[in-house]
Amino acid sequence: MKNRRTIRRYTEQAIPETLLNELLEVAARASNTGNMQLYSVVVTRDKAMKERLAPAHFNQPMITTAPVVLTFCADANRFVKWAEQRKAVAGFDNFQTFIASTIDAMLFAQSFCTAAEEKGLGICYLGTTAYNADQIIKILSLPRLVVPIVTVTVGYPDGQPEQVERLPLQAVVHHETYADYTPAIIDELYRDKEALEVNKQFVRENQKETLAQVFTDVRYTKANNEHFSDVLLNVLKEQGFLK
Amino acid sequence: MKNRRTIRRYTEQAIPETLLNELLEVAARASNTGNMQLYSVVVTRDKAMKERLAPAHFNQPMITTAPVVLTFCADANRFVKWAEQRKAVAGFDNFQTFIASTIDAMLFAQSFCTAAEEKGLGICYLGTTAYNADQIIKILSLPRLVVPIVTVTVGYPDGQPEQVERLPLQAVVHHETYADYTPAIIDELYRDKEALEVNKQFVRENQKETLAQVFTDVRYTKANNEHFSDVLLNVLKEQGFLK
Repeated sequence: MKNRRTIRRYTEQAIPETLLNELLEVAARASNTGNMQLYSVVVTRDKAMKERLAPAHFNQPMITTAPVVLTFCADANRFVKWAEQRKAVAGFDNFQTFIASTIDAMLFAQSFCTAAEEKGLGICYLGTTAYNADQIIKILSLPRLVVPIVTVTVGYPDGQPEQVERLPLQAVVHHETYADYTPAIIDELYRDKEALEVNKQFVRENQKETLAQVFTDVRYTKANNEHFSDVLLNVLKEQGFLK
Repeated sequence: MKNRRTIRRYTEQAIPETLLNELLEVAARASNTGNMQLYSVVVTRDKAMKERLAPAHFNQPMITTAPVVLTFCADANRFVKWAEQRKAVAGFDNFQTFIASTIDAMLFAQSFCTAAEEKGLGICYLGTTAYNADQIIKILSLPRLVVPIVTVTVGYPDGQPEQVERLPLQAVVHHETYADYTPAIIDELYRDKEALEVNKQFVRENQKETLAQVFTDVRYTKANNEHFSDVLLNVLKEQGFLK
């Protein structure tokens, strides 16, 4: 786990159905809310389906080159259908249930990824799922009370990329209470990251003054964040998780 | 990972600081959004702080009996502070950033838990964090753009509880598109769960007619779900993630 890295290029080797199921079985042992298992995963192997999904992920090539694409979903639909068949009235059409289901979906997804990496597979998370959830819902025929949260591409690694940097541990750990960051501490925590040649080149390529500007002006802009926030809030309403 | 189980009872053995840091270092290798690491964790070891946190978790005993309590937070604060110091204007005060941060926090949390279990520790997730986020924010002094998502109690296991059941794998896996559940399939998927003696006893103890009713009428009621949805949406507004 300490040496893991995201894998974006895969060989043509297929993932056997038995292995995939074994990994999903292991993943289902992850903790979940009240053992209600408020999640699902849609497995995409079909080439035509991958091509339909690709635009929703801004045509990142992993979607069509990975042997398996997994869309992990927050899912209260199955539980509610069960409840309705058992004389139980489930009040699960609300935001708190959406968050519980999102947590369940993420624990299941991450356990799958760790188990897959232990078996020599490589994975890549795509955060585009929450941006274009509306498109993915249509393509995968997701019903009410189901929202796609993240997508993971899986395959055998074609090459071993460099491990990317992380902030020093003290950047993300607080003891007893949250010690907010002073300007001096921010400088210290980001110094190594900013000094990396790969990040300096990233700034030059994007013709920006600072590394932070690459994130705020190019990769995660205010306009995009706000647009896709509206899309996602609308998706939550349409799927029944928000009034 | 396949044999794991949630551990709610711990021995008095302390967790060495070096081991905890090693596990958090491993966890920080988990995937995250654009390598922005939009998460933090607050480590609680102090007895008085555990006692302050306990009511926010409805006094579940793990909070005060575990040697370490970890509150995993969606955190855009550190990134935004960095951006502001680097002439970058971050438009991160929105719902999409909250979801990205929640995903980051969950991947970090789940990698921590898997690594901890590999070292012989036991963990328990508490979903109460998202219910009483407002209280936890005050106790842990969480600033704007930080929201607690889940809490994990950690310690050396005192005893080995039975592994709890899961639905059959086909309940949570769909191929190519989502095949919605027919009444016959719901019956089939939940048959084994409903037949378990422990679940039958659960129904009797709660004086209910069906297992589903225990969840909808006792454990996750519509009234509670709706109340805590309002609390959480208000927290998102107060912390700057929702207009």
